[in-house]
Amino acid sequence: MKVGILGLGTVGGGVVNVLKKNGASIERRTGVNIQVILAAVRDIKQDRICDTSNIKLTEDPFEVVNHPEIDVVLELIGGTGLTKKLVETAIKNGKHVITANKALIAKHGNKLIQSANKNKVRLLFEASVAGGIPIIKSLEQGLSANKIESLAGIINGTGNFILTEMKEKNRDFDDVLKEAQSLGYAEADPTFDVEGIDAAQKLAILAAIAFGTELQFDKVFTKGISNITTEDINYATELGYTIKHLGIAKRVGNGIELRVHPTLISNEELIANVNGVMNAVLVKGDALGTSLYYGAGAGEEATASSVIADLIDIINNQTSNHILGWKSQEKLTVIDTESIDSEFYLRLLVSNMKGVLAKITGIFHQYNVSIEELIQKQIDENNNAHIVIITNKVNTKDIMGIKAAIEASEFNQDNMQIIHVESLD
Amino acid sequence: MKVGILGLGTVGGGVVNVLKKNGASIERRTGVNIQVILAAVRDIKQDRICDTSNIKLTEDPFEVVNHPEIDVVLELIGGTGLTKKLVETAIKNGKHVITANKALIAKHGNKLIQSANKNKVRLLFEASVAGGIPIIKSLEQGLSANKIESLAGIINGTGNFILTEMKEKNRDFDDVLKEAQSLGYAEADPTFDVEGIDAAQKLAILAAIAFGTELQFDKVFTKGISNITTEDINYATELGYTIKHLGIAKRVGNGIELRVHPTLISNEELIANVNGVMNAVLVKGDALGTSLYYGAGAGEEATASSVIADLIDIINNQTSNHILGWKSQEKLTVIDTESIDSEFYLRLLVSNMKGVLAKITGIFHQYNVSIEELIQKQIDENNNAHIVIITNKVNTKDIMGIKAAIEASEFNQDNMQIIHVESLD
Repeated sequence: MKVGILGLGTVGGGVVNVLKKNGASIERRTGVNIQVILAAVRDIKQDRICDTSNIKLTEDPFEVVNHPEIDVVLELIGGTGLTKKLVETAIKNGKHVITANKALIAKHGNKLIQSANKNKVRLLFEASVAGGIPIIKSLEQGLSANKIESLAGIINGTGNFILTEMKEKNRDFDDVLKEAQSLGYAEADPTFDVEGIDAAQKLAILAAIAFGTELQFDKVFTKGISNITTEDINYATELGYTIKHLGIAKRVGNGIELRVHPTLISNEELIANVNGVMNAVLVKGDALGTSLYYGAGAGEEATASSVIADLIDIINNQTSNHILGWKSQEKLTVIDTESIDSEFYLRLLVSNMKGVLAKITGIFHQYNVSIEELIQKQIDENNNAHIVIITNKVNTKDIMGIKAAIEASEFNQDNMQIIHVESLD
Repeated sequence: MKVGILGLGTVGGGVVNVLKKNGASIERRTGVNIQVILAAVRDIKQDRICDTSNIKLTEDPFEVVNHPEIDVVLELIGGTGLTKKLVETAIKNGKHVITANKALIAKHGNKLIQSANKNKVRLLFEASVAGGIPIIKSLEQGLSANKIESLAGIINGTGNFILTEMKEKNRDFDDVLKEAQSLGYAEADPTFDVEGIDAAQKLAILAAIAFGTELQFDKVFTKGISNITTEDINYATELGYTIKHLGIAKRVGNGIELRVHPTLISNEELIANVNGVMNAVLVKGDALGTSLYYGAGAGEEATASSVIADLIDIINNQTSNHILGWKSQEKLTVIDTESIDSEFYLRLLVSNMKGVLAKITGIFHQYNVSIEELIQKQIDENNNAHIVIITNKVNTKDIMGIKAAIEASEFNQDNMQIIHVESLD
């Protein structure tokens, strides 16, 4: 099998290195010799992390996607402009395509998959979600007997690193973000990771696979972690919870919820114990029940592991033209996140005036929202008190009503913090 | 696709129920209609957990394996006598076989796989290990780019339920075992579960898949959990560990370790937090690093989930005659567990005589074994003391030497408890 690579950076170099290490064993198992014959790079003269002595290098990426001998193109350059054109060309030229590019799939996957179907080639993207964890294959193959009810994932390692450090070392967000940047976990502009866009792209892909729908990236409700404080994390700990940044997709009636936001999870749940840069996806199927898949969400060889697994999948199913099992798609509309039911964590800063608790609980009562737990703390130098409340399961609209009522009150001293509380198991 | 089932008990009934529920969706995805046309049962008149109105029932299992229209036989009766003959016959008749029978595969898998290869049919057994967790598919497909370095699994739900209850509720082994029996988690004769035989069969299967070797069930070192006391569990907790019953397979040089035994694991490790009847398998690959797969290890629909996933695998790879990717097998000899390197937990009961600690540490020094942690406790009415020690990584032979020396000493009051301590991440 002859392979061409677009991009020999971290992931591309990792693929070449892993193939060098394990290619013989893969050949022994599959009977097929995988040869990388051509790679497009930005600058031929640059130093590489991999041995390129048997690979022809070119600075023209179209040479790869148009090369007559190449069976499979690995798209490992990223971006959604030129890259889209390259992938389209490869598909039209009858080449299978494997990509690690979540943005490309989240934004243009529907059309690219159609085109791959039409051209009877495969478009695979295991590496685009949760790095080395074989979550797409698990959903498509291992869990193929199930109707998937929901999934919830820690699918952004940078965000999980930040939240873990904030909890374990009582450090604040900005401080840890700077460290993440210096360690290379976070970009100079961290928006993509900490505001949840990266996670939303991955969630859109996971949901499409899990529910057999079109990709609906533009409909993912997305909220980042930049407003989570160490106070929130410590209150959560005190109440037996950990705050994680989750991507959640849930089947509700004929619709689906698609949302990325911080969430309190009970420490009893396994996913609350997934720390540092590690990723994990929890899946609920109607037959299997709850299962969880955990591993490295990034890293050159971890990502290469998924890219090469896709290559081996093509070897084993060369003639199959089913892409992702999508013979036909389900129509599931995305439910407005402003109207879903959830438990909530609320943190208020209020004047420590007489009867303030009675007034607050009165507002909750007015909206028919029960308080599961309440802690009052820290009367500060301004005679203000922190009040932390966990509600029962209520509609988001009622919480918004409570927020507006409290923020309009005479005792309110700051914006209310609101975080979802989820039971995943 | 026409399917025949041997056995309509828990798993067989579960398969029929899940196919009824999700068959239409599977057909929509795969383009293939799965029809169960015939099932062999012990007693046709018995009540069933599934609807059998479209299934012909027979009391002659050979009718199923000889039926000319049947493409795939699901072997869900268990046992290794008549069952082996039935599976052999089905294979010789050119039928694919799916089984949930770990004992059959562990004992006769090598020959059965040979026969399936020869007859160009597939023999699949995802459900034989860790119930609904797609661990075999993950090893074969998702992790196919990796050289697997090690795996460690909680692969017996009964044992994990017992250890979890002992820890969380401070109950002793016999007490929890009785409850497990009354809940139906443990058999009247619990040996198979609590002495590790069940786990050893599953480990042999996992190791063969992970390392691409023959099945080597008879070479698995196997030790049960019946001698674990609440004292051990509480000391482990005090030291930051949880005791789990693990199946461990590890590549060391040109050999492999294959062992099932109780193990102390740091509470920081995710697998230490897998509780109750749940199963989990941690896998280390040379490219991916550490990954973990968690889910229900038993239950009618969870197990059915794996059986039907194998069916769908056959639909998608009908013409493929590669069984488990084993084009050729690696020769890896099993390393004698009595000579491996490990950390150890030791619990001693000794007379509280003058200088006893100096004598004990002297014996450790004599064998060049360093003590990482030591706690001395509970001087009882007989003036005896409990001493608990965690060693550094040492050879098992040295620990056996220390055990013999201490047990021969004048201060020793009871057999020494010895438990492995593993770092898995």
